[in-house]
Amino acid sequence: MQTPLTDLLAIDHPLLLAPMGTVAGGKLCAAVSDAGGLGLLGGGYGDAQWLERELDLLEGKRFGVGFITWSLARQPELLDLALEHRPEAVMFSFGEASAFVAKAAASGAKTICQVQSLAAARQARDWGADIIVAQGTEAGGHGGARSTFTLVPAVVDAVAPLPVVAAGGVADGRGLAAALMLGATGVLIGTRFFASDEALAAHGVKQRLLSAAGDETQRTRVFDLVRGYPWPDHFTGRAVANDFLQRWHGREAALSADLEAEQARYFEATARGDADTAVVFGGECLDLIAEQKPAAQIVAEIMQEAQARLSRF
Amino acid sequence: MQTPLTDLLAIDHPLLLAPMGTVAGGKLCAAVSDAGGLGLLGGGYGDAQWLERELDLLEGKRFGVGFITWSLARQPELLDLALEHRPEAVMFSFGEASAFVAKAAASGAKTICQVQSLAAARQARDWGADIIVAQGTEAGGHGGARSTFTLVPAVVDAVAPLPVVAAGGVADGRGLAAALMLGATGVLIGTRFFASDEALAAHGVKQRLLSAAGDETQRTRVFDLVRGYPWPDHFTGRAVANDFLQRWHGREAALSADLEAEQARYFEATARGDADTAVVFGGECLDLIAEQKPAAQIVAEIMQEAQARLSRF
Ligand SMILES: Cc1cc2nc3c(=O)[nH]c(=O)nc-3n(C[C@H](O)[C@H](O)[C@H](O)COP(=O)(O)O)c2cc1C
Ligand SMILES: Cc1cc2nc3c(=O)[nH]c(=O)nc-3n(C[C@H](O)[C@H](O)[C@H](O)COP(=O)(O)O)c2cc1C
Repeated sequence: MQTPLTDLLAIDHPLLLAPMGTVAGGKLCAAVSDAGGLGLLGGGYGDAQWLERELDLLEGKRFGVGFITWSLARQPELLDLALEHRPEAVMFSFGEASAFVAKAAASGAKTICQVQSLAAARQARDWGADIIVAQGTEAGGHGGARSTFTLVPAVVDAVAPLPVVAAGGVADGRGLAAALMLGATGVLIGTRFFASDEALAAHGVKQRLLSAAGDETQRTRVFDLVRGYPWPDHFTGRAVANDFLQRWHGREAALSADLEAEQARYFEATARGDADTAVVFGGECLDLIAEQKPAAQIVAEIMQEAQARLSRF
Repeated sequence: MQTPLTDLLAIDHPLLLAPMGTVAGGKLCAAVSDAGGLGLLGGGYGDAQWLERELDLLEGKRFGVGFITWSLARQPELLDLALEHRPEAVMFSFGEASAFVAKAAASGAKTICQVQSLAAARQARDWGADIIVAQGTEAGGHGGARSTFTLVPAVVDAVAPLPVVAAGGVADGRGLAAALMLGATGVLIGTRFFASDEALAAHGVKQRLLSAAGDETQRTRVFDLVRGYPWPDHFTGRAVANDFLQRWHGREAALSADLEAEQARYFEATARGDADTAVVFGGECLDLIAEQKPAAQIVAEIMQEAQARLSRF
């Protein structure tokens, strides 16, 4: 399946692995790239040791790297570290990325910016991004308020002729086919790959993901609060409504008031892989995910189902 | 374009006009039906005089009628009034509709239930609905929290083999084509037809709709509060963020405290067609709507663009 995205990135399938922080490691990235898509390493909040270790696993592979922009701004040297490993693409999400885009482009990498509104899409185009990811609010993890279904065509119109990639809610071939109809040139997939064999996550967390329904996820700040991450106000994280979320969502002031004690409890539970307390990021597409699978199988099934849908009409 | 929906309703195009309360009158309904879709009359909160007048305009036409279920429960005789006019279909949204579904089905009409979650979809199937509308949060007017992109395929899987219709965010042929890829058998369209020649609305309101962007809409309760409509907690209305919304959203207690004076101001402004105060319901698809058009032209353009997209692949 050829699109402007497959041409630009020289890949077989218009399908990118979302750079899920600490979850999308070298092994998952390599699996998605080997299957014909492009794996983006989840640089997340930025941990040089983690990054170096996972980048080493990608020696000789085609891959990209994704950063949380406001966090990268506090340790910009991590971009240099990534660029030394010659990624095909670098993706920036959540924050002002103009200087980073310029630097990555100068090194020869393609640049990708993930946006949550039309205003942000126009900004990313002006920074010189090669590819815009339009991320809907149904996405797992951090994001904004607009939904995929209208954000994608509106961004396509706003930044044409730049290629737009749809993110948020794509978990099967129906989603890929629909994204193409909306004018996207491909998709960026997170939650579906979180529930893959290669994702770096505790067994209990993946199990919780598989049993949860889309109706059970919601956008919240409580996990950022307890983990001490200073996210800008307009971004929230979509997670499964576990015990911790239900206890504190809407009671953020009380959580802040008792933060030290709650943090101790939270990190202890997380270390145990306790999915009732630890954050389980996941999107509304959880309804469409019933089984943990190898990443290569996920890619193959999505491509096959999308082709079948598209050729039926 | 033939789908199980076009077969069931004996229509040419898989496209339904949303029963927008007081906005989707007889003229707009007739225009959509004449163009090959099915117009659903916007019964809204229920006003016998309005309903009778608009039903009379539909004499000899094919049409349906839509009700806000919790409001219909307070004046169930309006369903009898509608059924006397022999609608092809009756649609129920927002509330427990089992008895209404049974009554409408007994009269020979097809029954449609609009839902906002998987749980509600299963309930509507159990009531015996013939068609399920899966409504995403990007929709204009009242709705829930799930987004169209994943709600549609999840509902399709949950209620198979019942036909599912996608609502929320469909404003052009890209949206129709995408909805079909997600497994829907057709679409239900509100906002795009609100900005049509035939919609019953003040000129200023339509103008405001055309100039607004998707990023400017949000879900709120302030217009229900000031208008005195007792909406169940889990439904909010998506509207353009005009002066009134920006003044009171998040300050609902203050609005309630000063309700009488604010109501007087609100209704006076509404009578003047003042779109800075009066509610302007509209969905995130407003980015895709630039011009007011006749409903027949809207239908023709959507069908043409969808066919072109579908055949390109
Ligand atoms: C577990 C998880 C972690 C994520 N971490 C990041 C991240 O560190 N940086 C980022 O740009 N996006 C992150 N995202 C969001 C993805 O980039 C993407 O927008 C999203 O996963 C797409 O929606 P989907 O989950 O429905 O596929 C994360 C998503 C998940 C599910
Ligand atoms: C102005 C307006 C009024 C609406 N009134 C009703 C209503 O009375 N009953 C109902 O079931 N839905 C109502 N809706 C919601 C529609 O049924 C439908 O779900 C929605 O318009 C679809 O999303 P879209 O606006 O993006 O097309 C209304 C929508 C709008 C825009």
